[in-house]
Amino acid sequence: MIKDKLYNWFKEGSLTIPSVLLTHYPKMGLDEKEVMLLLQLQNFIEKGENFPAPSQIADRMTFEESECLFMIQRLIQRGFVMIEEEVDRTIGDERYSLQPLYEKMITSYLVSQKQEEAVQVQVEGE
Amino acid sequence: MIKDKLYNWFKEGSLTIPSVLLTHYPKMGLDEKEVMLLLQLQNFIEKGENFPAPSQIADRMTFEESECLFMIQRLIQRGFVMIEEEVDRTIGDERYSLQPLYEKMITSYLVSQKQEEAVQVQVEGE
Amino acid sequence: MIKDKLYNWFKEGSLTIPSVLLTHYPKMGLDEKEVMLLLQLQNFIEKGENFPAPSQIADRMTFEESECLFMIQRLIQRGFVMIEEEVDRTIGDERYSLQPLYEKMITSYLVSQKQEEAVQVQVEGE
Amino acid sequence: MIKDKLYNWFKEGSLTIPSVLLTHYPKMGLDEKEVMLLLQLQNFIEKGENFPAPSQIADRMTFEESECLFMIQRLIQRGFVMIEEEVDRTIGDERYSLQPLYEKMITSYLVSQKQEEAVQVQVEGE
Repeated sequence: MIKDKLYNWFKEGSLTIPSVLLTHYPKMGLDEKEVMLLLQLQNFIEKGENFPAPSQIADRMTFEESECLFMIQRLIQRGFVMIEEEVDRTIGDERYSLQPLYEKMITSYLVSQKQEEAVQVQVEGE
Repeated sequence: MIKDKLYNWFKEGSLTIPSVLLTHYPKMGLDEKEVMLLLQLQNFIEKGENFPAPSQIADRMTFEESECLFMIQRLIQRGFVMIEEEVDRTIGDERYSLQPLYEKMITSYLVSQKQEEAVQVQVEGE
Repeated sequence: MIKDKLYNWFKEGSLTIPSVLLTHYPKMGLDEKEVMLLLQLQNFIEKGENFPAPSQIADRMTFEESECLFMIQRLIQRGFVMIEEEVDRTIGDERYSLQPLYEKMITSYLVSQKQEEAVQVQVEGE
Repeated sequence: MIKDKLYNWFKEGSLTIPSVLLTHYPKMGLDEKEVMLLLQLQNFIEKGENFPAPSQIADRMTFEESECLFMIQRLIQRGFVMIEEEVDRTIGDERYSLQPLYEKMITSYLVSQKQEEAVQVQVEGE
C-alpha cells in the first residue's frame, strides 16, 4: 500500500550535517572517504547503534571490512573519533563519539574567521 | 564579540541529507568521492549558487579543478546530475539539478524494499 | 572561551521537521499550540528523553503544567500520540511515540495529492 | 506510480530549526502561535518565496488573513522580523528576513548560559 511505503520511507529519516564540515574538511586533514565514513558513524549513532561493527559500516561503503577497520583506527589515532564507555548500562558497553571531530571543525572555522578578519584589517589599513 | 561569532556560525547553516543516500549509494554505482561531490553541489544550490564553477567546488575538496570537472561530466553522463536552463531570469542562466540523483535513490530504495519483501514471503512460506 | 561556547551551541542541535507538517496541520485538525507541543515531544525524544514529564514540557512553553497534561491526554485520545512500553530495558519504561502523527500526516498528504489530480483531470477534460 | 509519489513527497522537503528556538521562545517573549507563524515564514523563504502574502500564510494556519497580517506587523514592530529590499533584481522587490529572530535567540541563549555559570560558581563557592 502506498501509505505504508511512504511511511517506511519517512521512517528512514535524514542526517543533518553542518555546512562548515563540507567547506572545511580538507583544511582539517580529512579526505572524502574519511568524511563519508564519519557520516556513516553519525548516521548509526543517531539511530541508536552507538558501536557498529566494521562489517556493518563496510556493508554501506565501497571498502572491504579490513580497510574500514583500518580507517577507523587511523581516525581514532588522529583524534577525530573517540571511544567512550557507556556508564548508564549495567554492562560496560562502548560507543563511538564524534565530539573530537566537531571540536576540530569549530577550531578550523574560528581559525579561518580570524584569517579573514586579519586580511580585512590589512586591506582597510592600506 | 561572542554574539556575532555565534550568529556567523549559525548563518553557515546545515545540510539535510536522506539517510537512504548513505545506505544506498554503493548499490547506485557511486563511490565516496562522487557522493561528497554531490553533497557539495547540494550545498552550493541550497545557498543560491546554482551553477558553481569547478574551481569553486575543487577549493572545498581534495581534488584538482580538472579532476573535479571530469567527475561532474561523468556524473552528468551517467545520469546523476542534470544541467537546467533557468527560465525566470532575463539572461539564459544554467543551473545544476540533482533531481536525477534523488530519483535513482528512490528507485534503489524501492528495489531493496521489494527484495526484502520477497525474502520474507519465501521465509514465511517455508 | 569562544571555542567552548560555539561547541556548546553546536551540541544543542537542531530539529528537522517535514514541510508537509507545516502545510497540513490545520487539515489534520491540529492548531498551532498542539503542533508546538508535538515538536517539543519530538525534540525530547530525539535527545533520548522518551517520556518527559508534563512539567518539563510546560517549562518550555507558555502553558501551565496542568494545561500541558490535558493537551497531551487529548492528543493521545485523538490518535496523534501513543504511549509505548520500552521492551529493551529490565524495568518496564514508557515512551511517547509520534508514529500516529506522522501516519496521519502522510494520509492527509495523499488525500490532497488525490484531490489535486482529480482537479487536473477535470480541467484537462473540459 | 509509487516512484513518482515518493519523489513528490521527497521534493516537499523539510525544515531544520535550532533546538534552542524550541527551548527559549517563551523567554524571548514569543508564544506558540507566533513561533508557528515564524516557522511558516522560514519555510516559504527556504522555498524561494521571500515575501508571501498574508493570505498565503493564513491558508496554512488556523487564523484569518487579517489576524495573520496583524501578527506579522506586531512581529516586525517588536523586532523579530525585518523587511529587506532585494537588491539583485531590477525591480525593487521586498523580502522578509528572520535575522532579528535568530539574533534574539542567540542573545537569549547566551544570557541563560551566563546565568547557569553564575549559579555554578556560587554553588562551588559555598
